[in-house]
Amino acid sequence: MPSIDDLDTPAILIDVGRAEANIARAQAHADRHGLKLRPHIKTHKLPYWAKKQVAAGAVGITCQKIGEAEVMADAGLADIFLPYNILGKAKLERLKALHRRVTLSVTSDSMATLDGLAATFTDPGHRLPVLVECDTGAGRCGVQSTSEAIALAKEIDKARGIVFGGLMTYPAAGRAGEAEAWLADARQALAASGLACERISSGGTPDMWRSGEDSVVTEYRPGTYIYLDRYQVAKGVGSLDDCALTVLSTVVSHPTPTRAILDAGSKALSSDTLGLADFGELLGVLGARVTGLSEEHGNVTLSGDARLRIGERVRVVPDHACVVSNLFDEVHLIDGEKVLETLPVAARGRMG
Amino acid sequence: MPSIDDLDTPAILIDVGRAEANIARAQAHADRHGLKLRPHIKTHKLPYWAKKQVAAGAVGITCQKIGEAEVMADAGLADIFLPYNILGKAKLERLKALHRRVTLSVTSDSMATLDGLAATFTDPGHRLPVLVECDTGAGRCGVQSTSEAIALAKEIDKARGIVFGGLMTYPAAGRAGEAEAWLADARQALAASGLACERISSGGTPDMWRSGEDSVVTEYRPGTYIYLDRYQVAKGVGSLDDCALTVLSTVVSHPTPTRAILDAGSKALSSDTLGLADFGELLGVLGARVTGLSEEHGNVTLSGDARLRIGERVRVVPDHACVVSNLFDEVHLIDGEKVLETLPVAARGRMG
Repeated sequence: MPSIDDLDTPAILIDVGRAEANIARAQAHADRHGLKLRPHIKTHKLPYWAKKQVAAGAVGITCQKIGEAEVMADAGLADIFLPYNILGKAKLERLKALHRRVTLSVTSDSMATLDGLAATFTDPGHRLPVLVECDTGAGRCGVQSTSEAIALAKEIDKARGIVFGGLMTYPAAGRAGEAEAWLADARQALAASGLACERISSGGTPDMWRSGEDSVVTEYRPGTYIYLDRYQVAKGVGSLDDCALTVLSTVVSHPTPTRAILDAGSKALSSDTLGLADFGELLGVLGARVTGLSEEHGNVTLSGDARLRIGERVRVVPDHACVVSNLFDEVHLIDGEKVLETLPVAARGRMG
Repeated sequence: MPSIDDLDTPAILIDVGRAEANIARAQAHADRHGLKLRPHIKTHKLPYWAKKQVAAGAVGITCQKIGEAEVMADAGLADIFLPYNILGKAKLERLKALHRRVTLSVTSDSMATLDGLAATFTDPGHRLPVLVECDTGAGRCGVQSTSEAIALAKEIDKARGIVFGGLMTYPAAGRAGEAEAWLADARQALAASGLACERISSGGTPDMWRSGEDSVVTEYRPGTYIYLDRYQVAKGVGSLDDCALTVLSTVVSHPTPTRAILDAGSKALSSDTLGLADFGELLGVLGARVTGLSEEHGNVTLSGDARLRIGERVRVVPDHACVVSNLFDEVHLIDGEKVLETLPVAARGRMG
């Protein structure tokens, strides 16, 4: 069996034991609180893990783009949620094809999106569930008020081939309470209008751990929980020792005693820090911080007793695991130093 | 012939006329100043453009990773510079194979790198030129002093199968003068040590335009000049109307009068702003700024009379064109609204 020493750098390593433990821990939490788990595949982009997540108890998966959903459907995933406004003839046709072969649901936050869906899905015998996306504070997509949510839900209810599927939100980071209140109000108002709201879907790994039995949310769409990263650790979700994804990299230069250069730059680690200081952390090298990136070089600043040598290999825990997955064509599943399997990142780069 | 209206979004559009004009303008500048041009392919990652750059007068191309150089060699590019410290058995073997089929040169800034090169390249009849990388202020790779440069050059000179090829630097942005002084000193000191320095290679699109006939630099490795982007425009290299690369995107949501959401997020535009405010600019929509990105959504803030509608397509000029090229599997070459050709981004994602 090959070892990580046999791999060329930079390369993504996935510690299988850690990822499996992260899956099990989240599923147990969800089960304990009566929450359905619908993992977002954006973090791994791999059928391998999507199947493991479902096998562990997830009700299905979440994809953001039709191209991702197609890859997952091809791999046998049977229940897919696309919380995105799907627009345009080409995408709607692909969505229709997908609806024929998997249990599908989508979202909408506008009449423009609904009009396209209603014109495409016309079979009352096989209706597409459409959830209303709500902006509960994150300031991205979503209706701005309960009355807008009710208006859209009523429009969905009127159409032949689509059906009101509930509410969906992506809450502002760390403000799950606000999202709860918003959604509880909306559910009540919908009920008063005669519209039952059986599914309320929320997202974000950190907030999942704060949701308890009294939550209005019925399903969660965490993504990063499977790999974790520096951002999740900063938010208190696990420790560095729980992070399953690392980037194996080689020290290619050491121009000064306090500066070393890695062969992993923004093309491997991405420039997405999610607001953290530094671009990554070196496993097992205290006092080494990735303080700068250009496309093909990572600048490491060494302090205290930290030492590196040219040619040495290090493992970087990135700030944001999901965007790193999108940069590599393959990942290596590892157990300690052993490479168990190398997988193509099947849903990488699916743009539409 | 298909139109850009037929493309799914998000998608990269390359305006062929603009890119060709940018190539011609840079080559004319280089010719006028007696500079050799050796374009960095990181910006486009396409044999198509590498060949056009050579046809226009470039002496060869620059790649950063062996995998990129292999793609370019396969496509027939004959003279490739790899300004990178190549380390490790696997990469050195690939480098050796590459040296058999193209005119190759590399860099080194340490004895560790030199040792590997000297052990791999042993044929005095076919020596590999190795340039000494110099840190002239950018704080990345490179020797820190003239005396270090001389010491390395002498070591190269002693080895059988490699030959001292000159000096190479990536200057600090906007501080080309410092780099000039550093390199002039080093050249003089090398000459005093009996080492001729016929090739001095520098990089960076903005600085290329500042180099005149009195420069110590003999060749430039500009990358972004072919496409340009918001950063280059901010640095005074051309205007928005010279930018050849745009990302075609659809407005998928318009939650408030001043907020619209695009289907291009950090997975399409990257989080790399190169220090600019905002993540991109919408062509032809004054008062619309891409103020936020998540992976699959771009937040546009509208001000003044700026208006967008859901379903509308817009073209985004990104902050940094090179990193955008690395995120897409293909690009569409356009002339006005016509799509001339769709090309795979052959050297995308080549990590090692």
